[in-house]
Amino acid sequence: MEKTIYQGKFTWLDVTQPHKIQLLDIASKFNLHAYTVQDCLEPDHLPKFEIDGLARFIIVRIYNPKDLETPHSVQDLTSKIALFYTDNYLITIHRLPQPYFEEIEKKYLAPGHTMTPCDVATHIIWHAVNSYLEPAQYLDDEVDKIESAIFARHSRGKFEEKLYHLRRMISVNKKLLILTESVIDEVYRDTKSNPFIQDLKDLNLKLHSNYEHIHEDVSNLLNIYISISAHKTNEVMKVLTIFSVFFMPLTFIVGIYGMNFKYMPELQLKWGYPASLLLMLVIIVVIYTWFKRKKWL
Amino acid sequence: MEKTIYQGKFTWLDVTQPHKIQLLDIASKFNLHAYTVQDCLEPDHLPKFEIDGLARFIIVRIYNPKDLETPHSVQDLTSKIALFYTDNYLITIHRLPQPYFEEIEKKYLAPGHTMTPCDVATHIIWHAVNSYLEPAQYLDDEVDKIESAIFARHSRGKFEEKLYHLRRMISVNKKLLILTESVIDEVYRDTKSNPFIQDLKDLNLKLHSNYEHIHEDVSNLLNIYISISAHKTNEVMKVLTIFSVFFMPLTFIVGIYGMNFKYMPELQLKWGYPASLLLMLVIIVVIYTWFKRKKWL
Amino acid sequence: MEKTIYQGKFTWLDVTQPHKIQLLDIASKFNLHAYTVQDCLEPDHLPKFEIDGLARFIIVRIYNPKDLETPHSVQDLTSKIALFYTDNYLITIHRLPQPYFEEIEKKYLAPGHTMTPCDVATHIIWHAVNSYLEPAQYLDDEVDKIESAIFARHSRGKFEEKLYHLRRMISVNKKLLILTESVIDEVYRDTKSNPFIQDLKDLNLKLHSNYEHIHEDVSNLLNIYISISAHKTNEVMKVLTIFSVFFMPLTFIVGIYGMNFKYMPELQLKWGYPASLLLMLVIIVVIYTWFKRKKWL
Amino acid sequence: MEKTIYQGKFTWLDVTQPHKIQLLDIASKFNLHAYTVQDCLEPDHLPKFEIDGLARFIIVRIYNPKDLETPHSVQDLTSKIALFYTDNYLITIHRLPQPYFEEIEKKYLAPGHTMTPCDVATHIIWHAVNSYLEPAQYLDDEVDKIESAIFARHSRGKFEEKLYHLRRMISVNKKLLILTESVIDEVYRDTKSNPFIQDLKDLNLKLHSNYEHIHEDVSNLLNIYISISAHKTNEVMKVLTIFSVFFMPLTFIVGIYGMNFKYMPELQLKWGYPASLLLMLVIIVVIYTWFKRKKWL
Amino acid sequence: MEKTIYQGKFTWLDVTQPHKIQLLDIASKFNLHAYTVQDCLEPDHLPKFEIDGLARFIIVRIYNPKDLETPHSVQDLTSKIALFYTDNYLITIHRLPQPYFEEIEKKYLAPGHTMTPCDVATHIIWHAVNSYLEPAQYLDDEVDKIESAIFARHSRGKFEEKLYHLRRMISVNKKLLILTESVIDEVYRDTKSNPFIQDLKDLNLKLHSNYEHIHEDVSNLLNIYISISAHKTNEVMKVLTIFSVFFMPLTFIVGIYGMNFKYMPELQLKWGYPASLLLMLVIIVVIYTWFKRKKWL
Ligand SMILES: [Mg+2]
Ligand SMILES: [Mg+2]
Ligand SMILES: [Mg+2]
Ligand SMILES: [Mg+2]
Ligand SMILES: [Mg+2]
Ligand SMILES: [Mg+2]
Ligand SMILES: [Mg+2]
Ligand SMILES: [Mg+2]
Ligand SMILES: [Mg+2]
Ligand SMILES: [Mg+2]
Ligand SMILES: [Mg+2]
Ligand SMILES: [Mg+2]
Ligand SMILES: [Mg+2]
Ligand SMILES: [Mg+2]
Ligand SMILES: [Mg+2]
Ligand SMILES: [Mg+2]
Ligand SMILES: [Mg+2]
Ligand SMILES: [Mg+2]
Ligand SMILES: [Mg+2]
Ligand SMILES: [Mg+2]
Ligand SMILES: [Mg+2]
Ligand SMILES: [Mg+2]
Ligand SMILES: [Mg+2]
Ligand SMILES: [Mg+2]
Ligand SMILES: [Mg+2]
Ligand SMILES: [Mg+2]
Ligand SMILES: [Mg+2]
Ligand SMILES: [Mg+2]
Ligand SMILES: [Mg+2]
Ligand SMILES: [Mg+2]
Ligand SMILES: [Mg+2]
Repeated sequence: MEKTIYQGKFTWLDVTQPHKIQLLDIASKFNLHAYTVQDCLEPDHLPKFEIDGLARFIIVRIYNPKDLETPHSVQDLTSKIALFYTDNYLITIHRLPQPYFEEIEKKYLAPGHTMTPCDVATHIIWHAVNSYLEPAQYLDDEVDKIESAIFARHSRGKFEEKLYHLRRMISVNKKLLILTESVIDEVYRDTKSNPFIQDLKDLNLKLHSNYEHIHEDVSNLLNIYISISAHKTNEVMKVLTIFSVFFMPLTFIVGIYGMNFKYMPELQLKWGYPASLLLMLVIIVVIYTWFKRKKWL
Repeated sequence: MEKTIYQGKFTWLDVTQPHKIQLLDIASKFNLHAYTVQDCLEPDHLPKFEIDGLARFIIVRIYNPKDLETPHSVQDLTSKIALFYTDNYLITIHRLPQPYFEEIEKKYLAPGHTMTPCDVATHIIWHAVNSYLEPAQYLDDEVDKIESAIFARHSRGKFEEKLYHLRRMISVNKKLLILTESVIDEVYRDTKSNPFIQDLKDLNLKLHSNYEHIHEDVSNLLNIYISISAHKTNEVMKVLTIFSVFFMPLTFIVGIYGMNFKYMPELQLKWGYPASLLLMLVIIVVIYTWFKRKKWL
Repeated sequence: MEKTIYQGKFTWLDVTQPHKIQLLDIASKFNLHAYTVQDCLEPDHLPKFEIDGLARFIIVRIYNPKDLETPHSVQDLTSKIALFYTDNYLITIHRLPQPYFEEIEKKYLAPGHTMTPCDVATHIIWHAVNSYLEPAQYLDDEVDKIESAIFARHSRGKFEEKLYHLRRMISVNKKLLILTESVIDEVYRDTKSNPFIQDLKDLNLKLHSNYEHIHEDVSNLLNIYISISAHKTNEVMKVLTIFSVFFMPLTFIVGIYGMNFKYMPELQLKWGYPASLLLMLVIIVVIYTWFKRKKWL
Repeated sequence: MEKTIYQGKFTWLDVTQPHKIQLLDIASKFNLHAYTVQDCLEPDHLPKFEIDGLARFIIVRIYNPKDLETPHSVQDLTSKIALFYTDNYLITIHRLPQPYFEEIEKKYLAPGHTMTPCDVATHIIWHAVNSYLEPAQYLDDEVDKIESAIFARHSRGKFEEKLYHLRRMISVNKKLLILTESVIDEVYRDTKSNPFIQDLKDLNLKLHSNYEHIHEDVSNLLNIYISISAHKTNEVMKVLTIFSVFFMPLTFIVGIYGMNFKYMPELQLKWGYPASLLLMLVIIVVIYTWFKRKKWL
Repeated sequence: MEKTIYQGKFTWLDVTQPHKIQLLDIASKFNLHAYTVQDCLEPDHLPKFEIDGLARFIIVRIYNPKDLETPHSVQDLTSKIALFYTDNYLITIHRLPQPYFEEIEKKYLAPGHTMTPCDVATHIIWHAVNSYLEPAQYLDDEVDKIESAIFARHSRGKFEEKLYHLRRMISVNKKLLILTESVIDEVYRDTKSNPFIQDLKDLNLKLHSNYEHIHEDVSNLLNIYISISAHKTNEVMKVLTIFSVFFMPLTFIVGIYGMNFKYMPELQLKWGYPASLLLMLVIIVVIYTWFKRKKWL
């Protein structure tokens, strides 16, 4: 579906859900290469910047998760927006509707504006990059929740799976921000210096940095959890061993005197029972001293 | 076996299963160095780009696994295709048949075409790079299966070995894509700007990125599994310890009163048995309280 | 709140808690771009250097932790200071008061001084970078305490959580020092060579290096702890197993002779009891020899 | 011991087991700096390329393990070959005999040859680099054996030590290949383009890549082994815990009824014994259900 | 304390334990900036190279551990030497005495020498870098000892703490060698080509490489140790579980027949006892077969 969003100092043509024929038509009309234009048909194409004759061709991806339980690929999490521009026109091509294009038109292309197609393109890229802000905060909060659960120390949860899926989302978004950083750099070099591109660079850097932090937190959380598990296992084992080391000899002693041999002299002694209890006490003291020296108690 | 696939604006000579003498003959006929040509005899030669006088020499590897249980080397998984080209000729040298060469000839070299030998070479490289797409999806699916098994939590499987062999396949393919990226860059710099080479760069980048993701998933899966194991061991240990800590004292008490000493006053008491049961109940309560305070129950 | 800290060879205007209107006013008065100036409104903006016409625009962050239990973000730990300067003026913009600005004015801008606005800016950056020195020492001491606790070997502490929060503080500060390093480099390139900027570079490098060290110590401490836990668990397990392997057969033997079968010939023998004790001794010796050969004892 | 291997278009002087005086003599005779020449006396000198006036000075190391149990240093595993060359001479200096020098002379310096001293030097470097091929295959096979043992799952071996020593050998060789890559690059830049140097670059790259793979395999093998151990420990623990959780209550019950209290009414009942067996069966069923719900059975 | 070590073709002034006033005096006398000179007062200043007008300013650190149990910082392990030089003078500034300065003077500055102040500075840097050789060998030997202890397999030692402190020493020295490499590179670029600077580069590279190796060994040793612990724990657990799984049912059986119920028909049978022993034998056989199938025996 084609629509002319703006017609004035330049033309802004917007294409939604393009067919191959439509694209080839645009290619020939605007003097673009077929290969370049056909990138718009690849749903999982990564961000790029390309010069095609006089035109500039950009692909960015906007955060837009599909309704899946565990989205994990570039396609699951983001949608592609392709932009072609020269001094005279801007063509935007995308599969899903992008209502904020209208807002950009209203805000920046009022009569008397001084925007160029490149400026509008930069605002679209800004909007795409900014879409990663909210998921960053969501992911950071989710990681914080898992942190708290881990440190609550009687956690029963099955958070490893959650962490695994969070990490994949973080990883995909981070990689797309890295690729978009290159695209923004190429726009910066290609165009006359422009404070809004600087602002876009700053935004991308901040978000990339956020995702680095969350990614680092996730890695470290897993290591901390392994350390906490090892620590807890050690404590549990110590309790088991201390109890066993005390009670096994005692249970053996009482087992000896529970045997049914006809001739077991000790059993006849009046002081037999107290003596066996004393023996058991001595054993307890010896073992306790041994543990104390081992610093286990 | 030599065959002229195309003769027209330039010559395309295709050589299958070359002998050393054949190669030296080609070297002298087309004015190439012996050393360069002899690379075609090394079955495990890595992708490269070389300038030999007026000619360009390229080696790429196409995904082509041998029928092994656990293929893990460059030779196990891929086959070499060597290409020489100038403005006048293209020579392709390979061990295994490459039927798609005929398809390329049909599709691109129809009368009136404007292709150069370099263009045809680029299409061959594209086909070689694209051969890594399907194994990427296969490897990603295999990793997904192991993921699901791990998170199903009653997994009995022996997946470590599977993961190990998957990782090696991923590693080899990833490395070849990295080397091929350098080759494509050198072709890009060497030739007049070319939208199809840009498309080839994008394809290589996407596949390299895919393999990075799967590689990362595999590393993380192993760490997650170690974490899950540590977690489960901790839970199992706790159950064992809790049971033992309860039952060892109780078993000791019943063992005391199972002794056969002649003089054990408690045994005569009418309330002896209920008293011992009460003592055991007290022990149970004390231990339960202790566990509650340790947050183990 | 605006205040002219210095008026003489140049003007130094200081703005605390700026409003958007105030900033736009400054922008138009000093011929700066709106986007550049509006960076001053982003509380979590990262350090940067930007050229805006004749002016230089710098953002640095000074260490200034908010009163939180576990501060972990750039905003939790630092405050932003924005600087604009040309040859004629210096504008400083910040949210929190910076009393040392007055000290800088007293110390360096006495009558007859030869300072430029850039020089003053450099001193402000020096002060911001130097604010990371004390937390580095604090973090290093905290890590040292955890080290000692870990190596004291009967540690019961819950230091994993502490380590986790320390690591995040270290990570944020380290990243800010890395970004500030780029800013200092850009000032260095932009300005005539200047021994104080070299001194600032050295300070930043030293602090960055400190944080690298502490970060490395934290990572390694966790690995060491996992190793110590594994080591201790192994020791505890060995004690449990050695005791169990000795006592289980013995307890079984005494259990046999505690059975109540009417016809158990051994029980009648006068030497039955001593013989069973001898049997148990033999078992002890056999097991001891087996452990000795396994090098467990 | 000095020997002129070749005298013709240039001179090839070969020096075995050089003394300091000999080297200083060569230095003065061929107008080389004392420091450069004295590198030949350092047994553990790393590969380098240096320009000394008109001469080129190269050190490479050839694989040559000393007869040690666990060789692990550069000196344990390799021998140094130093080369000086100009257009007029080649001097080779080494400690151990290098018989293939004669082969190179026979093969390449027959009457009518067009080799330069640099060409001969390149062949010597090729031979040194190629010496790492066989150990790569050996190391790869050794790692494969350890792999198989690990996956055979009833491994009793002490392979950690073996892996540790293999890793060190891999690490040293890999590092030397990385340094040799720089040397080859410098020769490439220094000399007129040369297909044999390209061939040498390819060989070095392939071997470096081999060692990277084996190094990666070793790291991963250790992680896999830790994962398998954790997995097996978890299985073993489960068996122990399941048995214990079943038998401890049952043993306690039979212990109760083994007590010798005079007044234990249950013992008199005709149905006492079957009832106790039934109680034990109920306990078994309850515990089994509990395990089933925990997915442990 | 100031001292003129050499006066001839140039002046070599040596300053020990400088005061601030002394340094400012030197700064003004030799036309150096106050900031540059004041670096000499920072005890933990990292290696650097700086150009100050016509002068060159270098800081290197010589290995010189303070008498601490666990030295771990740059200051604990090294001492600073500052050097200023032009064509006319060399000034060395340091806190601790450096007796080898006299040796350098004797060896290189005899009448008729051709040394420049830069040459002398290079020799001083060589001496500082060479001071890291002996600790490298010491650290390598210490790591070897811990290796042997770990592989001796009945190690009881507490080597984790030792490894931790070794790693920190390695890390500090390695970092200083990396920084010194940059300094040497800057001297190399700044001065006319010089075989002794090349020799210094080689020495620094070799030592840096040594420390990389030892650092890598330490990391790997810890991983190997965790693997060995996991392996040993698994073996110990298996022994415990195998014994328990055999003896718990048997102990239960003998417990049943130890019960005191009045009506237990089996107890009266003449073959009761042998039958129970047979039952126990059957149980042993069944369990043994089960373990054999699990490959635990
Ligand atoms: Mg591009
Ligand atoms: Mg948060
Ligand atoms: Mg967080
Ligand atoms: Mg990741
Ligand atoms: Mg990624
Ligand atoms: Mg901004
Ligand atoms: Mg960070
Ligand atoms: Mg090349
Ligand atoms: Mg998938
Ligand atoms: Mg996946
Ligand atoms: Mg890998
Ligand atoms: Mg690889
Ligand atoms: Mg494309
Ligand atoms: Mg900037
Ligand atoms: Mg400290
Ligand atoms: Mg520390
Ligand atoms: Mg971190
Ligand atoms: Mg300084
Ligand atoms: Mg670090
Ligand atoms: Mg060099
Ligand atoms: Mg193999
Ligand atoms: Mg292998
Ligand atoms: Mg290694
Ligand atoms: Mg190494
Ligand atoms: Mg070759
Ligand atoms: Mg410098
Ligand atoms: Mg050694
Ligand atoms: Mg070593
Ligand atoms: Mg370290
Ligand atoms: Mg360090
Ligand atoms: Mg040397």
